[in-house]
Amino acid sequence: MNGQALSFRPLADERLETYLQRTADERLADYLDFLRIPSIGTLSDHRADMVAAAEFVAERLKRMGIDNVEVSPTAGHPIVYGDWLHAAGAPTVLVYAHYDVQPVDPLDLWRRPPFEPVVEDGRVFARGAADDKGQLHLHLWAARALLEAGGRLPLNLRFVFEGEEESGSTNFEPWLAANRQRLAADLALISDTGFFEGNRPAITIGLRGLMYAQIDVTGPRVDLHSGTYGGNVQNPANALAAIVARLKNADGSVAVPGFYDEWRPLTEREREEFARLPFDEADFARGHGLHSVVGEPGHLPLERRGARPTLDVNGIWGGFSGEGSKTIIPAHAHAKISCRLVPDMDPERTFERLRDFVLAGAPAGVDVDVRLINVGQWSLTAIDHPATEAASAALVDVFGEQPYYLREGGSIPAAALFGSLLELPVVLLGFTPPDDQAHAPNEWMSLDNYEGGLRTIVRYWQRLAEVAL
Amino acid sequence: MNGQALSFRPLADERLETYLQRTADERLADYLDFLRIPSIGTLSDHRADMVAAAEFVAERLKRMGIDNVEVSPTAGHPIVYGDWLHAAGAPTVLVYAHYDVQPVDPLDLWRRPPFEPVVEDGRVFARGAADDKGQLHLHLWAARALLEAGGRLPLNLRFVFEGEEESGSTNFEPWLAANRQRLAADLALISDTGFFEGNRPAITIGLRGLMYAQIDVTGPRVDLHSGTYGGNVQNPANALAAIVARLKNADGSVAVPGFYDEWRPLTEREREEFARLPFDEADFARGHGLHSVVGEPGHLPLERRGARPTLDVNGIWGGFSGEGSKTIIPAHAHAKISCRLVPDMDPERTFERLRDFVLAGAPAGVDVDVRLINVGQWSLTAIDHPATEAASAALVDVFGEQPYYLREGGSIPAAALFGSLLELPVVLLGFTPPDDQAHAPNEWMSLDNYEGGLRTIVRYWQRLAEVAL
Repeated sequence: MNGQALSFRPLADERLETYLQRTADERLADYLDFLRIPSIGTLSDHRADMVAAAEFVAERLKRMGIDNVEVSPTAGHPIVYGDWLHAAGAPTVLVYAHYDVQPVDPLDLWRRPPFEPVVEDGRVFARGAADDKGQLHLHLWAARALLEAGGRLPLNLRFVFEGEEESGSTNFEPWLAANRQRLAADLALISDTGFFEGNRPAITIGLRGLMYAQIDVTGPRVDLHSGTYGGNVQNPANALAAIVARLKNADGSVAVPGFYDEWRPLTEREREEFARLPFDEADFARGHGLHSVVGEPGHLPLERRGARPTLDVNGIWGGFSGEGSKTIIPAHAHAKISCRLVPDMDPERTFERLRDFVLAGAPAGVDVDVRLINVGQWSLTAIDHPATEAASAALVDVFGEQPYYLREGGSIPAAALFGSLLELPVVLLGFTPPDDQAHAPNEWMSLDNYEGGLRTIVRYWQRLAEVAL
Repeated sequence: MNGQALSFRPLADERLETYLQRTADERLADYLDFLRIPSIGTLSDHRADMVAAAEFVAERLKRMGIDNVEVSPTAGHPIVYGDWLHAAGAPTVLVYAHYDVQPVDPLDLWRRPPFEPVVEDGRVFARGAADDKGQLHLHLWAARALLEAGGRLPLNLRFVFEGEEESGSTNFEPWLAANRQRLAADLALISDTGFFEGNRPAITIGLRGLMYAQIDVTGPRVDLHSGTYGGNVQNPANALAAIVARLKNADGSVAVPGFYDEWRPLTEREREEFARLPFDEADFARGHGLHSVVGEPGHLPLERRGARPTLDVNGIWGGFSGEGSKTIIPAHAHAKISCRLVPDMDPERTFERLRDFVLAGAPAGVDVDVRLINVGQWSLTAIDHPATEAASAALVDVFGEQPYYLREGGSIPAAALFGSLLELPVVLLGFTPPDDQAHAPNEWMSLDNYEGGLRTIVRYWQRLAEVAL
């Protein structure tokens, strides 16, 4: 079972630990207050709630003595900024989390209203309890505990909390670009990931990048009668199927020439860490209603998820899709195609290779267009990077076991932007249980994960203060 | 230019020709009255109009002395039946046309209301003027002229006029099956086709059959995140593309094993007739906004349309088709696939071959289902069949030129049913100009085509009376 009980150790620093224990009720009440704000960023009628959530965060930063706190407007939802830069000689860490949450539909599947948090069996149930207001909140309290119990932070921090993560961080990139100068830091710390299956401590060291394209195949001006015209007209839907089929080999590998050219082979250590990760293929398949796990031979499933690039059709359409029959040759057909990218692949270069391969093999008699819809950079911080090692040590301090090292298959826009725009190493240190129902009804967070996470953050900052970044 | 002026000769039988000329105004008025009935069979609020159109036809059959006239109810629209069987020793011909018409939208593209017929420059503009009320109407007047001017028909006739041709003749098959005994005949004569490009007289000797199937590819229980799952899950849309691509070879031929096994090679005469037909590839491509005509090498375009089987995707769909991007692995993907069939192919056998080939090559990790949606039989009557030769001679009598012999790519359900259910040879003798806008706004019929067609029918019946069928 996932989400199983987790034990964490008290902090060795007694004054800090006493503070944390003494304020536990106040902290939980504050956490629940934060969760009561329905900060659904994608719905325009929650605009005022988004501002309220941002103000909630800003108010707490100010109250604990963080400097330069601002609720910085964007074309979308505001970004909350604040810094504390009084640890001369110590590294500066940019701390990121997001205060927006996923929509709540289907509402009827929630056992309790999503913005009326309840605590039950050590779990907090509410939208955002885990993703990501819970993780944002523990950063507020890690800083507060250090400041109130000890009067100072062990290192310099810049808090950057955004409200558009669930809608693609659209306005985060221009804000980052505009504020690049004042965001000087040594490391970006993101808390928006979680623990591994079985609720085991884990550090996410890598995320994949993305190249998302659309293929448009255009034939006759209008749909044609398949009887009258069949035999003399290139069918755009048949042509599209041929184009798409040609993109992959029978073994599941991608057939686009050069696709793997920049793939960075795994290090010995990376291979070992992948091999350490438990993964039950039968369980995975059963869980998703699949006959079997299907992927490139020669790679472990979790390697294929995190460390190999992929090509998937995200959508395909053209012609008639109703009940029964309509005998047409469709005028056009389309596919959305995306690739997940890993080090050292470049999204634009990948797009160009895809486009060139598609166009070079385009069937006669139709127009084929391939266009780029969007891109995202991959992110990877080495297992032996000092910032990763410090995170690992902090987890051992609190949970008493070596963490797993994960490379996730998806993307977090902020992670890619911190890497590409600010050129910072990125550490993804998050604490949510793996079955937290983020993005689904009845989202929850374990209070053990929260409290252990809080202590881990404190320890991480303390350890980072002693590291040369 | 199509629809160009056509000259026809008066009938040699002076009494008949005089009758036709004397009644020309009455006939036109009657034709326009028929067109005023908005007999749109597919729209349920035109049900009363359908009955009115059927009664219109029945009333005229009765008035001219046709026996056993009935408006025969079906689960859909009625079938009008009547016979005249007093030509002992002469053949019996089943005459078919349909009184239902296509819907009229987009209505704003009509220059005049579709059910308010007008005559302009020798053309009748109205929905149904050509397809098929005009052609039904000239049969009424051919019989009436022979009966009123000469007191008898030269051969035995059974009129069968249906009201569901434009909606797939759904209730025609059970009606035919139920009335098989009393429909004994030697030949089925269908007037629902037209002249060739340039308004040249033509006989349609063949129609293609149909096999329409759907392929359903099912993967995970729900759409999955392409980042988290990409690399370990067979993507149903990729799998579908691979399945569909495998159905055709690069040269456009069908790759399903055995697909062509029952293909009947063209006779020398058929090849000659195909070669006689003018076809301008550049004009065809331009007319449909295409770069080029694309089809199997080694066959003329009109052979590929009428005498070669095809395989086309009629629709394909799965996953996300909106603006922008959604990064999913679709839970399922689907395609509608149909084949046009020619002698001596069997629709069910073709389906089985397709299904077996698809299933044998189905990618791992997904469920693939192939199901038959519907079928239709092909139809072919030889150029040297006596009924074809008589039709050809009748066209020469009236229009003074050898007709073209066409094999059309589509299907007319009735033609297939007369062949398969009643086991009759089928002659498709129709007179509409090729650019008559049937199924489109501003449908029209040339009065020269109508009057020439009327005389051709008279001559055809006279000639058939002398032929051993």
